[in-house]
Amino acid sequence: MKRRKFIEDSSKATAVLMMAPGLSILSSIGKDKVRLGFIGVGARGLTTLKLALERNDTEVTSICDTDPITLKRASDMIAKAGKREAKVFTGNDLAYKTMLEDKNLDAVIISTPWEWHTPMSLDAMNAGKAVGCEVAGAMSLDECWQLVRTHERTQTPFMILENVCYRRDVMAILNMTRQELFGEMIHLEGGYQHDLREVKFNDGVKYYGGGVEFGDKGYSEARWRTTHSVHRNGDLYPTHGIGPIGSYINNNRGNRFEYLTSMSSKARGLHDYIVNHPKGGPDHPNAKVKFRLGDVVTTHIMTSNGETITLTHDTNLPRPYSIGFRVQGTKGLWMDLNKSLHIEGISPAHKWEDAEPYLKEYDHPLWKKYASDAAGAGHGGMDWFVLNAFIEAFKNKEPMPLDVYDHASWSAITCLSEQSIAQGSEPQSFPDFTDGKWMTRKPIFALDDRY
Amino acid sequence: MKRRKFIEDSSKATAVLMMAPGLSILSSIGKDKVRLGFIGVGARGLTTLKLALERNDTEVTSICDTDPITLKRASDMIAKAGKREAKVFTGNDLAYKTMLEDKNLDAVIISTPWEWHTPMSLDAMNAGKAVGCEVAGAMSLDECWQLVRTHERTQTPFMILENVCYRRDVMAILNMTRQELFGEMIHLEGGYQHDLREVKFNDGVKYYGGGVEFGDKGYSEARWRTTHSVHRNGDLYPTHGIGPIGSYINNNRGNRFEYLTSMSSKARGLHDYIVNHPKGGPDHPNAKVKFRLGDVVTTHIMTSNGETITLTHDTNLPRPYSIGFRVQGTKGLWMDLNKSLHIEGISPAHKWEDAEPYLKEYDHPLWKKYASDAAGAGHGGMDWFVLNAFIEAFKNKEPMPLDVYDHASWSAITCLSEQSIAQGSEPQSFPDFTDGKWMTRKPIFALDDRY
Repeated sequence: MKRRKFIEDSSKATAVLMMAPGLSILSSIGKDKVRLGFIGVGARGLTTLKLALERNDTEVTSICDTDPITLKRASDMIAKAGKREAKVFTGNDLAYKTMLEDKNLDAVIISTPWEWHTPMSLDAMNAGKAVGCEVAGAMSLDECWQLVRTHERTQTPFMILENVCYRRDVMAILNMTRQELFGEMIHLEGGYQHDLREVKFNDGVKYYGGGVEFGDKGYSEARWRTTHSVHRNGDLYPTHGIGPIGSYINNNRGNRFEYLTSMSSKARGLHDYIVNHPKGGPDHPNAKVKFRLGDVVTTHIMTSNGETITLTHDTNLPRPYSIGFRVQGTKGLWMDLNKSLHIEGISPAHKWEDAEPYLKEYDHPLWKKYASDAAGAGHGGMDWFVLNAFIEAFKNKEPMPLDVYDHASWSAITCLSEQSIAQGSEPQSFPDFTDGKWMTRKPIFALDDRY
Repeated sequence: MKRRKFIEDSSKATAVLMMAPGLSILSSIGKDKVRLGFIGVGARGLTTLKLALERNDTEVTSICDTDPITLKRASDMIAKAGKREAKVFTGNDLAYKTMLEDKNLDAVIISTPWEWHTPMSLDAMNAGKAVGCEVAGAMSLDECWQLVRTHERTQTPFMILENVCYRRDVMAILNMTRQELFGEMIHLEGGYQHDLREVKFNDGVKYYGGGVEFGDKGYSEARWRTTHSVHRNGDLYPTHGIGPIGSYINNNRGNRFEYLTSMSSKARGLHDYIVNHPKGGPDHPNAKVKFRLGDVVTTHIMTSNGETITLTHDTNLPRPYSIGFRVQGTKGLWMDLNKSLHIEGISPAHKWEDAEPYLKEYDHPLWKKYASDAAGAGHGGMDWFVLNAFIEAFKNKEPMPLDVYDHASWSAITCLSEQSIAQGSEPQSFPDFTDGKWMTRKPIFALDDRY
């Protein structure tokens, strides 16, 4: 039934490709600097802003946020970098729309609360501004479709800024999968396993921890992200796991996600945190909040080529950070938890080997070339690579390496996992956001050492 | 629909509890040796036979097999141990029935091909012989019900010989879960990840490897086990993972499995093995065999108390052995792959700690007491414990620590995962084999240092 609905929606939405505003921008640049606007300069936006300011081929012309404190931090950062002052857009939630009217703006970086990612991306694409959008965010399958259709109609570049796709070990493994060291892909695992309790709760002043406040009384992510844990139950943050896996299995490029099932454990972690925190306790008003998000949400995905994928979302409990990668093929497998791999005919039979020598040997050409540039950038350097890819693809007028179809199919996992859980783990079919083009599209992600 | 079917079946099967043959046997022993018969003395049966021969409280009075070679090995082993010669039952598949007529036999150990476990267990219970049955085997949910109803009717002791429940680290973790070091249970993982290609194929002479034969041309497990990989697709061997997890979450004792979904990857490993083996190749007749068993089968289980469980079955690909345990609660988690744990308030925040010191500190009383007795027994000593538990519970006329309800609910995973995969991962409800008794039954497994 759902599948039929999508087909109807997609045929309604089909539109003749038009010469879109984005194309004129694309043709206006090439040698000059890419003029960037930042929508959202909170904790995440500031990290990307810093990287943009370090580049010689970008100019930050405008920044936008509703929070004066973080706007001041951004302006100070720009000044400290010795760069020209950026225009500031603020005052209300829709101030970014005014910013998008600026003819001297080529592209925007969107680092706002999840629920704003789609409307802002749509407005930016419609205004002909290339979009680099932070991960997570489609609140419905219809939002995924709108992004796809708007991109197809406007031809404005869109990239999902999934940084883990550029993690050094992840890219070395990509290199190995392409050289078929693991053989034909069979089963993959990943996820987002990160104790976010000090992200979801703080004291209303600091970014992280120090209290049990969220929503209006929280600050930064606690102000908006926690609300999703109150009201939603599903894999809310699938991209760090599924992004790299998508590259390994050529998602939307000869392969695609067909259906998934999701299952959610009971929800205990966030309530316990409030009750046991020195600034919380059983009488704190937030102790009455009922969190819907299960502490551990597991999702199985079936692909059209017959690989299976297991994703885990685990953000409410005390635990060490782990994506939990497993990349398994007919000739062997890699797992990041024990930093080990096994390859038939090379590794001793039935034994793990330390992955490190292999990760060095198969270091991706991009990392070989740019490791020193990336050094010091956020999240072990991968933030540098993802911004670099966006800027380089834009400058070269080439397709974005992680595109709107990637984004739609990854984000759909969140919506479909919510549906599956609500229906007692019933399987849910993925829409084909490519309208069949997945059968013939070729891989483009990180094929060489360019970006 | 399925659930209704089960209820009908179970009401049909309900019978008045009768004074059963088993009870007279039970009352006839206590001080003397337990008189054991072995049905199946192949690779696995011989291991258990050896342990039985080392005990002072058992006497192996009869052995049964269809293979003269392995019967000779068993007889030689008995002679070498200086024990009295056992009666031999052989000649056809049903020779065990004659053995069960022996009045001087208290209990049987069943180590036969999976498809024989249920009929032999039923016959043994009906003959009043206590049953220690090797793992795996119910071919249908109806077989699970028959085992339960036959046990309830005859009151003959039945134990499923799941040895991993007695693994030293597994029991230390059980100790820790009971002391609530991990808090309330949230999510658990396990499985059977074991490259069985040299078990599923051999040269028809050796137990393991050396060729690509199976079925009539194979030997030992390759003679029968591989056939299941040809015809079935599901989690064929769930107990090593689910057994320990069952103890952690008190399965059938205040909790139970409610439903599952399963997903299967493509099947490549076994075919590839045949084609690439020096004694195989693309022209070998077995290269034409189409194996249905997916190389990696993943299963999600939901419990009535809201814990989630992920099981992985992975036996066709090159890989190191791993059960892949994860035991996660509100206060922390243990994983066996990286031999690490994290406990809130004890471990450094967001960091793994080596599990070893904890496993030592929380070593289970049973292991503290019997480690030296178990030393040298199969599978790191755990085989000693599982046989010991069966014999001690029998001698003491106490309930079996891993009983027919455990066996039925674990074995049902195989049947239900096959159904789920056949239906595109549709969720499947577990029958309640306890008829509601799970709500009030109390844990009994390894509560102290007795057995």
